[in-house]
Order: sequence, then structure tokens, then C-alpha cells
Amino acid sequence: MKQIIAETSLINEFPILTKMPNDLLERLNATAFWRRYELGEQVQNRKESCDGLMKVKSGSLRVFMQSESGKEITLYRLYKNDTCVMSASCLLNNMDVDFLIEAETETIVILLPTTYLRNASDSYPILKDYLNELVQQRFSQLTWVLQQVVFSSMPTRLATYLIEMYVNGGSKNLELTHERIATDLGSAREVISRLLKYFQEEKLVSLSRSHIELLNIDRLKQIK
Amino acid sequence: MKQIIAETSLINEFPILTKMPNDLLERLNATAFWRRYELGEQVQNRKESCDGLMKVKSGSLRVFMQSESGKEITLYRLYKNDTCVMSASCLLNNMDVDFLIEAETETIVILLPTTYLRNASDSYPILKDYLNELVQQRFSQLTWVLQQVVFSSMPTRLATYLIEMYVNGGSKNLELTHERIATDLGSAREVISRLLKYFQEEKLVSLSRSHIELLNIDRLKQIK
Repeated sequence: MKQIIAETSLINEFPILTKMPNDLLERLNATAFWRRYELGEQVQNRKESCDGLMKVKSGSLRVFMQSESGKEITLYRLYKNDTCVMSASCLLNNMDVDFLIEAETETIVILLPTTYLRNASDSYPILKDYLNELVQQRFSQLTWVLQQVVFSSMPTRLATYLIEMYVNGGSKNLELTHERIATDLGSAREVISRLLKYFQEEKLVSLSRSHIELLNIDRLKQIK
Repeated sequence: MKQIIAETSLINEFPILTKMPNDLLERLNATAFWRRYELGEQVQNRKESCDGLMKVKSGSLRVFMQSESGKEITLYRLYKNDTCVMSASCLLNNMDVDFLIEAETETIVILLPTTYLRNASDSYPILKDYLNELVQQRFSQLTWVLQQVVFSSMPTRLATYLIEMYVNGGSKNLELTHERIATDLGSAREVISRLLKYFQEEKLVSLSRSHIELLNIDRLKQIK
């Protein structure tokens, strides 16, 4: 799906563009397009791919790292109206990271392709500044993940994760496999299953196939 | 120790300044100074402190995170001619990180104080760009630490750490306590002592009080 975007809509999505001169805006506008990813589709498989800046309009993207042996850890997710800068990281000289991105559901994004962005960000420091501020946000998020991994116990991380999923999705009924949770937390499925079973015995959650219902958010928050 | 720096020397240390106009350079030069930190002195104890951009001229700085309970993990070290941007992170709007910095030996730095840098980086995008490129380098380093913690076993991390210390210090005789290594790797002293003992049995290292001699670098590199 490649569909031209109205100029007003592009400015609405990326307000930073109001500060660009008209001719540049027109050029960016002519190259920007909507793109749809299917469930599970890879948006970026290695750092060489660098499609451009994306704004998520529906669905969700998962940004993660993978080891040589295929082990994964999820760094963060992007939902409606979040902007994905890692798909444009080649615009930033010193970003040497190897993040992968996949669509977790059918996901629609507005894409500003790298080629035109590169010229624009070289000529307009304000645009480069904008990209850098997005990177700084992700830096903070990465720091948070590292803190969790090093300083928090797995029970605390699991409880934090379940609450986060509830806050993002708006429902206490989570459609989640134990495998999925293990991948997100960089752990093993057996470890997660054991902990969830313990949470169930403590009446914090109720488990059924690919499904977890949160029964006591307040007590989950207190897990140490 | 607060000592005025010759203008030529400031430009040598921060070549980016050649692109600044003369009056700004003069002002920066008038505020820049040498500072000496004693062994163990805190350079930055919480994110509120934001002294400015530092260039290490001798000694070494350790950048680390600390949990509420006092557990630590070392993110990276800065040696001679490395530039410390985390001590100026308040200049970057979206950097919300809580890094601590301490001098590991007597350390001398050249400091460009935040107050003057702030005006300069607002007026000169090229300077802000420079700060952002330093942040991007650290981003890549942080990603590496996270990868190590999540994907590598502790024996591999310990071996990598010992080799890194050898490469940085230039000697196979490392003055290191087990406690120090544990703090750097975000682990417990007992875990490190047990592993080092195993390394010694395998004739990879030789241990004595506060001292580790590396006996076989090639085999240390192969530890899985």
C-alpha cells in the first residue's frame, strides 16, 4: 500500500515540518507515503535497513535485540502516534546499534523516506535536532531496561511487565503466551511459567491458554 | 585547582571550537578551566549535577548506575583524551538518565562549564550536533552492555572484562579486587570469586591478593 499523503496531514503528523521552507516541504510530501505491515512482518531486520522516520497510525511495532543464537529482548513498543527513529538511525553518524523491528499486529505507518530526510536534516539543523531528541528519549528507555535487568528480580520485572501491558491495552485480560513474555524479558519460558503459576497461587492472576487475567493490580505493584 | 587555559590549547582539545566565531571562543576560553579529582571523588552524584563537558587529560572516570539498594553496574570508563558528555547531559532536552560518575584514580580534566555551553549550543547547531554525536556513541555502548548482560553468560562476561582491562591498561597484571569486578559487572562478589577460582584451575589466570595475572589471553577469548 503506497498512498500519497495530503500536505496538511503530513504537517499534522510531524509538526516540526512547519519550520521547513515550502519547497522542501513539498518535496518531502511528494515522497512520504502510507505503508501497511502484516502481523509478524519484519520492519527492519538489521541495521543496514534504514527506511526512514515512521509515525505509527494504528497497530504496534516491537523494537528488540537478538543474539547470535536467536535469544531476544524487547526494548520498547511503539503504539498509535509514536514516532520510530530507529528505522532512520543511519541519518545519525554515530549510531552503531543493531535493533530489529517487527509489526506485532497489522500496523499502518506514515513513512518519511531516508533519502529525502538526509538532505533535509543536513540543511536544517532543527530537523536533525528533532531526530536527536527522539534518540535521547530512546536512550532513557534503554537505560530503564538495563536498570530493570540488572537491579530488579525477575518476579518484579514480570509484575511490572503485566501492569504495563494492562496500561497500554486498557484491559485486565491479556492475550499473551508465556513464550512471548519470556522473549520480551530476555528470559526462558520455563522461568516465566513457574513465576506465573506462583502469581496464580497468590491470587494475583488467573491463567488459561494464551490468556492471563490480572486479579490484583495493587498487590502486583508491590511484588519485590 | 582552577587554572586558565590557553586559547590554542582549548581548540586543540575541542577541535569543534574552530567553527565558532572568535568572540564566543574567547568567552568559552575565559570560563574553561582545569580540574583535579582525587581518587574516589564523586564527579557527578545524581543527574541534577551537570557541571559541563569534560575532556580527560590523565587518570580515569567511571560512569555507572546505582540501584536504590546501592547495587551498581559500570557502563563505561573514560581515559586520557576521552570526552565526557554525561556531565553535560542537562544541555540535551530529552536526556532523562541518572548516571553517576567517579574518579577511579587522581584524574585531571578540562571542563567547559554548562552555563556558557548552553548559550553556545543554542546559537550554534554544529555544537549541539557535536554533543549529540557523543550521546550517540554512548547509546551504542549502552546497547553493548545490555547485550552482554542479557545474552552472555557470566563466565564470558568476566573473560571479556579481564581482556578489556588488559587492553586498556597495557599489562597482564591487573590490580583488581573481586568486589570491584562484581560492581562493574552488576554481579555479586561470591559469584566472581567462584568463577575466578575456576579460571585459575583452568590455568587461565593466577590469583593473589587484589591482583590477577592473565596467563592465557587466547583461551580467555574463547570462554563461552
